[in-house]
Amino acid sequence: MVEKRRTEIAWVEDGRILVRGYRLEELIGRLSFADAIYLVLRGELPDEARSRLFEAILVSVVDHGPSPPSTVAAVTVASTGAELNAAVAAGVLAISRYHGGAIEESMRALASCVRRQKERGASAEEVAEEFVSFCRQRGVRLAGFGHRLHRGDPRTARLFALAEELGLAGEYVAQGRALEEALARVLQRHLPINADGAIAALLCELSFPPRAANGIFMIARIAGLVAHVSEEQGQGVWLRPVVPADYEYVGPAEREMT
Amino acid sequence: MVEKRRTEIAWVEDGRILVRGYRLEELIGRLSFADAIYLVLRGELPDEARSRLFEAILVSVVDHGPSPPSTVAAVTVASTGAELNAAVAAGVLAISRYHGGAIEESMRALASCVRRQKERGASAEEVAEEFVSFCRQRGVRLAGFGHRLHRGDPRTARLFALAEELGLAGEYVAQGRALEEALARVLQRHLPINADGAIAALLCELSFPPRAANGIFMIARIAGLVAHVSEEQGQGVWLRPVVPADYEYVGPAEREMT
Amino acid sequence: MVEKRRTEIAWVEDGRILVRGYRLEELIGRLSFADAIYLVLRGELPDEARSRLFEAILVSVVDHGPSPPSTVAAVTVASTGAELNAAVAAGVLAISRYHGGAIEESMRALASCVRRQKERGASAEEVAEEFVSFCRQRGVRLAGFGHRLHRGDPRTARLFALAEELGLAGEYVAQGRALEEALARVLQRHLPINADGAIAALLCELSFPPRAANGIFMIARIAGLVAHVSEEQGQGVWLRPVVPADYEYVGPAEREMT
Amino acid sequence: MVEKRRTEIAWVEDGRILVRGYRLEELIGRLSFADAIYLVLRGELPDEARSRLFEAILVSVVDHGPSPPSTVAAVTVASTGAELNAAVAAGVLAISRYHGGAIEESMRALASCVRRQKERGASAEEVAEEFVSFCRQRGVRLAGFGHRLHRGDPRTARLFALAEELGLAGEYVAQGRALEEALARVLQRHLPINADGAIAALLCELSFPPRAANGIFMIARIAGLVAHVSEEQGQGVWLRPVVPADYEYVGPAEREMT
Repeated sequence: MVEKRRTEIAWVEDGRILVRGYRLEELIGRLSFADAIYLVLRGELPDEARSRLFEAILVSVVDHGPSPPSTVAAVTVASTGAELNAAVAAGVLAISRYHGGAIEESMRALASCVRRQKERGASAEEVAEEFVSFCRQRGVRLAGFGHRLHRGDPRTARLFALAEELGLAGEYVAQGRALEEALARVLQRHLPINADGAIAALLCELSFPPRAANGIFMIARIAGLVAHVSEEQGQGVWLRPVVPADYEYVGPAEREMT
Repeated sequence: MVEKRRTEIAWVEDGRILVRGYRLEELIGRLSFADAIYLVLRGELPDEARSRLFEAILVSVVDHGPSPPSTVAAVTVASTGAELNAAVAAGVLAISRYHGGAIEESMRALASCVRRQKERGASAEEVAEEFVSFCRQRGVRLAGFGHRLHRGDPRTARLFALAEELGLAGEYVAQGRALEEALARVLQRHLPINADGAIAALLCELSFPPRAANGIFMIARIAGLVAHVSEEQGQGVWLRPVVPADYEYVGPAEREMT
Repeated sequence: MVEKRRTEIAWVEDGRILVRGYRLEELIGRLSFADAIYLVLRGELPDEARSRLFEAILVSVVDHGPSPPSTVAAVTVASTGAELNAAVAAGVLAISRYHGGAIEESMRALASCVRRQKERGASAEEVAEEFVSFCRQRGVRLAGFGHRLHRGDPRTARLFALAEELGLAGEYVAQGRALEEALARVLQRHLPINADGAIAALLCELSFPPRAANGIFMIARIAGLVAHVSEEQGQGVWLRPVVPADYEYVGPAEREMT
Repeated sequence: MVEKRRTEIAWVEDGRILVRGYRLEELIGRLSFADAIYLVLRGELPDEARSRLFEAILVSVVDHGPSPPSTVAAVTVASTGAELNAAVAAGVLAISRYHGGAIEESMRALASCVRRQKERGASAEEVAEEFVSFCRQRGVRLAGFGHRLHRGDPRTARLFALAEELGLAGEYVAQGRALEEALARVLQRHLPINADGAIAALLCELSFPPRAANGIFMIARIAGLVAHVSEEQGQGVWLRPVVPADYEYVGPAEREMT
């Protein structure tokens, strides 16, 4: 006899769709999409501050141009004449240990530092100093600091400012900043918190576990993948190699929100 | 010499990330995630009514329990001990011609009917009668009407009411209703507009082309896929067959939003 | 009630595994792997000539270096730290309409030409002349002729010679050669039958339908995908862009079989 | 400057395709497909005994009916109207830690036991007794023994007999048998070596490293995946749930090779 499988996420019967206990039709028009995602992932609705911060986190990842490996994989598959599902799936496959995975790794580091603060009654600064020295000795690169393309990641300041404003910049944000300073002292080199690190700190503030990070990255980036694949399909030239360095941007010039 | 590839979607340079011309950090905290998706897909920001309707459409697809083939594929792959990216990608692969694809097909039908109205100065009712008879003669099932699990899909009424309220229920919604009535007259059977049909009408009202439908479905459903995969990974029992009929819902009982 | 699903391919019961009616343990050690593939795909075992030709076809596709889009997609996904299954799946996703798909298209062209010969009592040469002129008028490129990298594809001559030797070079090979000559006459340009075209002709000789082509390509190329992914995983450098033009071959120098 | 990427597998230049140093056209017609796979994976050609054993291993995995999760995932995706590449890729994604992965785990166990023999001058029997007791204390199931569907796996006897005949049944096969006996003594229960365990022992005899196992499983099973997907596509009924228990075998009745 096959044992019943159990699910807590959603249930569908004639005329009734429950998502985490709420009737789906009640959510339509009353909840933002990001809140619905939060509900599906967490089982509960966010309060208003958390809702706004989660929206911001998802927006910050929505696209990063043609060079990330997920986009390269998706466009490469699209260039062979494959359907949308195949190309987007290839992009999702590239969101893995190192691409996207830096958020998870950074969440683990932050969580481990904050735990250590509590276990030892130490300050964020003390733990940071210790952690950075430890990583340096082992030759381990600290996830969430520095960026191949940005000296200072413009997303970090904005995300942290918003978290402050919403009263959600707590011990993980503080720990992230302490690590940034410790890195500067120990390495004599400014490696600013990048977007991965900032998102990691904020997902920790929202009590997401580290293993949730890659899923959130996928959810946030899939719109970008769909857009890049559609763009490739619309060009009608097939089997062109996808070389990030060969791209030219022909979209709208920089403009302001009105 | 390799010809430059062109992209209109986004561009990344040191310290600057442009998405459709906007600096990404300007969008963070000011735009909802759904608006950011709309921007990435369409190139422009939605006005307020369109923004609310697009949120609602995405929410209406966010999850549909354990039985859709995309969820079965994703959970089946997860049941083998695969990583999140592999399992979610399998789910995305199942969003194809028939699963999700009904929205696209329904958009094509609605667009073709509305075009016919204009070409021939005919009413939505006349075109509907003709279209339904034509489909009946050929034995073609009309996408977007009826549902394997729901007699009346609770999402349809809610989506259409919201579109009315926002002033966005135009000729495509009218055409959808005319088709529903024509089906009842011709087949002597009530096949109500299902969520696929309702979403199709509303995406048409938002001027999305039919080929955008599957991408939007993927974007909306991926949170559900991530949640189902995480649930499977958390159970620690491997290689169990994934049989929709063997599921039991153990989530929160029906509850109201507060 | 769920209707029984039916399968003709294989069946497993306690202590008995049937593959197309044969007990699997009877096949082990008595059948080559290529013969087993042929059996699984076709339902019957090949005779000796067909067996040898099918082996040769599979060998001819086994790998094509680092530049095909399936390899680029697979290695790109591997470069993010993804598992083998994810990376190989991305490679499989790239075997689609244009990559690999040229074999199918070429099979359709050959099948259509040979059918026309019979319907009209025309010679391979007459049909070829007509077909090439027709393609030229419409600006359609004929699949299976010419190659981006090879002036003459070394695989074609070998495959055709083997088919001759085995008595399997029939009307499809003749039609392929007639098309090659007609192309030279009409376009005044030598576009030799490439490996896709040669394989197409031989799969037609083996009575495979055109829609089988991509599956055979996947089966033949997956060893190459696995090897390239393993090589990437072994290098321990992550997130390097995969640019075909940046590769250097460091394998064994050219050598002879002994 | 981008550092050159290196590959040892294959190289393509105008008119020349090298695979591990051999010109591909030289291999066509002279090498079996399984030998070509061996060459691509290992860098060298197998001798005749190893060639025959490798063929047998691949044949033993070629298909296992409709119930393995890779087949379920592939057919589920095919049931949505997806293309062949998408459906086969979903099947590949399911070849992972637990499905297929038992071969790798069993190879690790055998390799570790044989290493222990050497380090300690112990016999296969002594090491087996110790290993089985150790696993039992920790409540760890030993990969490669017992089977959900087969009391005795018919493939094991055939594979081991062939290895004996070819002079390739060495210390890993002996260790596998010693473990089987130790399991019977310690657990008082006959858990015969299953096909995963037998293949594991033979891949060890061929000096494949454990991490090669899943790739070989994919290579061997992809023909089965292609066949099951094609069968589903040919039925023209869409979105039917794929429930292994609902299948009926309608292929040829049991028959003998002639």
